[in-house]
Amino acid sequence: MKRGLTVAVALTLFLGAAVAWMGAPAGLAQGTSRTIDARDIPVPAAASQALRDSIAAMPMMPIADSAPSTAAEWEAFVQQRDGAADGTLQPLAAAFGVEVDQFEVEGVPIYRVQPANVDPRHEEHRFLYVHGGAYVLGGGEAGVMEAVLIASRANIQVIAIDYRMPPAHPFPAAVDDAVAVYRHVLGNRPASSIALGGTSAGGGLTLATVRRLIELGVDVPGAIYLGTPWADLTDASDTIHTNEAIDRVLLEYDGWLSAAARLYAGDHELTHRLISPVYGDFDGFPPTYLISGTRDMLLSDTVRVHRKLREAGVAADLNVYEGMSHAGYMIVADSPESQQVYAELGDFLLEHLK
Amino acid sequence: MKRGLTVAVALTLFLGAAVAWMGAPAGLAQGTSRTIDARDIPVPAAASQALRDSIAAMPMMPIADSAPSTAAEWEAFVQQRDGAADGTLQPLAAAFGVEVDQFEVEGVPIYRVQPANVDPRHEEHRFLYVHGGAYVLGGGEAGVMEAVLIASRANIQVIAIDYRMPPAHPFPAAVDDAVAVYRHVLGNRPASSIALGGTSAGGGLTLATVRRLIELGVDVPGAIYLGTPWADLTDASDTIHTNEAIDRVLLEYDGWLSAAARLYAGDHELTHRLISPVYGDFDGFPPTYLISGTRDMLLSDTVRVHRKLREAGVAADLNVYEGMSHAGYMIVADSPESQQVYAELGDFLLEHLK
Repeated sequence: MKRGLTVAVALTLFLGAAVAWMGAPAGLAQGTSRTIDARDIPVPAAASQALRDSIAAMPMMPIADSAPSTAAEWEAFVQQRDGAADGTLQPLAAAFGVEVDQFEVEGVPIYRVQPANVDPRHEEHRFLYVHGGAYVLGGGEAGVMEAVLIASRANIQVIAIDYRMPPAHPFPAAVDDAVAVYRHVLGNRPASSIALGGTSAGGGLTLATVRRLIELGVDVPGAIYLGTPWADLTDASDTIHTNEAIDRVLLEYDGWLSAAARLYAGDHELTHRLISPVYGDFDGFPPTYLISGTRDMLLSDTVRVHRKLREAGVAADLNVYEGMSHAGYMIVADSPESQQVYAELGDFLLEHLK
Repeated sequence: MKRGLTVAVALTLFLGAAVAWMGAPAGLAQGTSRTIDARDIPVPAAASQALRDSIAAMPMMPIADSAPSTAAEWEAFVQQRDGAADGTLQPLAAAFGVEVDQFEVEGVPIYRVQPANVDPRHEEHRFLYVHGGAYVLGGGEAGVMEAVLIASRANIQVIAIDYRMPPAHPFPAAVDDAVAVYRHVLGNRPASSIALGGTSAGGGLTLATVRRLIELGVDVPGAIYLGTPWADLTDASDTIHTNEAIDRVLLEYDGWLSAAARLYAGDHELTHRLISPVYGDFDGFPPTYLISGTRDMLLSDTVRVHRKLREAGVAADLNVYEGMSHAGYMIVADSPESQQVYAELGDFLLEHLK
């Protein structure tokens, strides 16, 4: 195939003009960043009423403060945010018809979330859950929210892992804890009966854990769930830039988020395969269910992982929701979008867990 | 379930702050559009080298002029653009190793694209192709480009339909022509052996044609391909707004694109089920392969259709490419992304055509 010719001809045919030979239009520098003018964006007209109402009431969520720098500042940052969850878990569990108890496995605190009505086909299955929060937030009760949604809507017993985090415990503590709890659960049942997953940092940690299990020669889970996974802790993903300030949850990378990435990585490169798993290998990964939204700053992380899984021959099912920012399906928890995400996740698990 | 409680608690838990009761941050009006500041966006770092080079060389493609208004202005607009393709089809066919001949079926001009090496398993299969171009561009040889890519990379015989377009022939002429050619091909082989598809307006026309076939009681194709389908000709889709000026191909809705929508619809509402098929019903649709990109202004059209297909119980496979604008896989035709799209489309057709 004459490659030079085909590209030139293809451009000509599609655009109906000889733009291939024109170079960039005047005023646009080649090879550098490009400035996008300010613009107004409306509330997404084709999202559900519940999601539209939520966005109209709160176009930007006030979480993006200046970044902490010292350990004491990080601890105050975390306490201010996660502390608001204190005492809310039991009312939440009651509202969703699940029972939650807390104990330790291999020295790691876990929350067991038992739905009132387990699907009989999920009776022997377990969902290991790793929470989000950029590897700094979501510890303790604050990290059990989505586990409750999964248990109550996918009708499966969930074990939420309260893994160690920085500043006291940077990488690889979180991966080590997830691997330890997984191996413990594996002592009682086959790997094919276990699902693993989570949202945001939980999605990234899921990928890192599977990669580590493969390296250790341990059987991988029967299926995994990646809710808008933080799979690249650098700013290489395109939607980090294109959806900046459009994503009402993450808002921007350059604030506390990039600081959290550095805090978690410690002495390691951000592109380490177990820190930013998109740079790793995906051979041998189990069937994967992926969720993102059109306004999500981690849409690119999600689709990059999806493509790499497909290239590795893995069954990977991508679902992107209209007008949704990062993790919107768990934040606007009684929207139809949220209901769909977890109901379809339950179906996916039924198809792939044995 | 106590819905009010659960949402409030969910918000609290996830954000770690009582934002649910704070309302919108100061300076943001509720329920209206929101202003996004100007910003610089870099060339997408994680796209392929071929796609990055193309974007760096041409950050915006110079197609978005002022909109034509009279029939004569439209004809000049089309001639200027599609005319540039004159004489390019045979060199293109030679470069991709396909033979193209042109004749009429049921009074509709068609191009038959025969690859040198048809996959033996596709010997009895046919791909009916409907081109894009916002229902105004892509007539004649200008509309055969993607048919050549499909034939040569999915290794299947393609029949490209040169359907009638406005200003002379507004809706429903395009749907009528696609239905007529489909029924003719159906005379020689089972519906399960026929695929139908196209990009942009071709994706929207594919959906409208399937919907019309169902209404007529005609067997639907065995599989369909929707490349970033123009499924909503209004501006309701979120990425029409969020990816405005970020999508280097479509650039904006308010120029010639919205004018083309009105020209095509004629006396009908833009939301007519056969003009903007996202508003129609998806029961009975065949397995569907969908493609979009993170910078695509029709990403929302694509994911809205994907969700509706899944809700209707249809097997629908969504694939979104990093840093890609509208139809970038056919424009940057020798990128790895383009190779992947059509190779995987071929696999999808092998799985679903009988």
